[in-house]
Amino acid sequence: MTRFKIVLSYDGAEFVGWQRQAAGVSVQGLLEDALRVLDGRDVTVIGAGRTDAGVHALAQVAAFTLARDIDPATLVRALNANLPPAVRALDAAIVPASFHPQFNAHAKVYRYRICNADAVSPFERGRVWHVPGPLHVDAMRAAARLLEGDHDFVAFQATGSDVETTRREIFSSRIVDCGSSPGSALLCYEVAGDGFLRHMVRIIVGSLVEIGRGRQPAEWLGRVLASRDRRAAGPTAPPHGLFLVRVEYPSALAAGS
Amino acid sequence: MTRFKIVLSYDGAEFVGWQRQAAGVSVQGLLEDALRVLDGRDVTVIGAGRTDAGVHALAQVAAFTLARDIDPATLVRALNANLPPAVRALDAAIVPASFHPQFNAHAKVYRYRICNADAVSPFERGRVWHVPGPLHVDAMRAAARLLEGDHDFVAFQATGSDVETTRREIFSSRIVDCGSSPGSALLCYEVAGDGFLRHMVRIIVGSLVEIGRGRQPAEWLGRVLASRDRRAAGPTAPPHGLFLVRVEYPSALAAGS
Repeated sequence: MTRFKIVLSYDGAEFVGWQRQAAGVSVQGLLEDALRVLDGRDVTVIGAGRTDAGVHALAQVAAFTLARDIDPATLVRALNANLPPAVRALDAAIVPASFHPQFNAHAKVYRYRICNADAVSPFERGRVWHVPGPLHVDAMRAAARLLEGDHDFVAFQATGSDVETTRREIFSSRIVDCGSSPGSALLCYEVAGDGFLRHMVRIIVGSLVEIGRGRQPAEWLGRVLASRDRRAAGPTAPPHGLFLVRVEYPSALAAGS
Repeated sequence: MTRFKIVLSYDGAEFVGWQRQAAGVSVQGLLEDALRVLDGRDVTVIGAGRTDAGVHALAQVAAFTLARDIDPATLVRALNANLPPAVRALDAAIVPASFHPQFNAHAKVYRYRICNADAVSPFERGRVWHVPGPLHVDAMRAAARLLEGDHDFVAFQATGSDVETTRREIFSSRIVDCGSSPGSALLCYEVAGDGFLRHMVRIIVGSLVEIGRGRQPAEWLGRVLASRDRRAAGPTAPPHGLFLVRVEYPSALAAGS
């Protein structure tokens, strides 16, 4: 029995999300189906995080245990031969039998892409949130920084969630330059933390856009955080602007990332 | 009567090409349908070039004459409200009644995108030609330069074409760095010229890849050019890697580009 860690990218538009559901195509379901063929038995795949329907991944991490002896490069090729082009295995590595992609992760990095142009480029469709009109980017920039540190982020959690603790450490929370192409006017929010609550990044972005539109001052975001009340925050930004950028592990587990 | 020049971007995957056809959706057809609604009469749209089925445009240029009085910014918004998201008007300008987007163009720039990674990123699907395996990039680079200048490019023209002259001036023919994202290994060919023959860029790229794969030396491309024989060149690269990047005009006509 060998445990594998794989890195994969997917276009969230085509799936009901990471997690296998009763109906619809999920990334976890596609991987488990492909691995069942490969290993001749049922294989359970665990992801570093459950991306919602429509959310994209540049480098999601998943793990599973195979009975068959297969080298990592061959595994990547075999998976890609059995997955649709909307999901690609990028890398694989053999890891200790105890490896858990979520519990062993040190950090996750998400990026949210906002298109501030009058029109969305055909090549950015489904990969940005279209927010036309003037934006106070400096206020958004200042507000984003207010979330860095160890805080209770319950105000930025989807209602009805059930987790042990709503405290998270956010290492970096920034509006960044993510390279505009002509006419695209891209504005990105990038956040790194030890974990994220359900819809947390999207509620942060919905709140930052309220500030960008001048409906709230930058300091308001600190008051929302302190309120511990979801109703104090802005609306949830749509899923299709959100990308899981990468998952970071202690160096001993970093192979294949 | 006012003549307009518009700049537009489209994802070629969704169309039978620029030109209106008996069957299928064309970019020209969509524009003419939208303008008929806007102007209350039939409007003929002329493009700077006829991109083939599957070929993309970052900034195609087109022109038409409207009876209705409308300012260019309003025209852009009205067009985008009536076009599918796969086509976006980026800009518009009023031009002299005699303006012809093809005959008045000084230069056209095309980019062809090759993905040299083992797997194509889900976000590059349909926007690259997947050419895995080792490539002699330096040989491709040297070969590309051999096409610069004023030459008879008939060896790089689709058979069955019928044009007055097959001479074209190529201002620049280069393998360029077009910014690789992690795992994408993008290799781009960028070419600027006063005009292009049918399938010319795709046949050049198909030939460059023969050189990249080591099947021909760099100098072979010069011999293909001199042969004036389509059969001497490489295969035609697929359309979905090709982008019309921009069309250049004399400065007096440059507004709206």
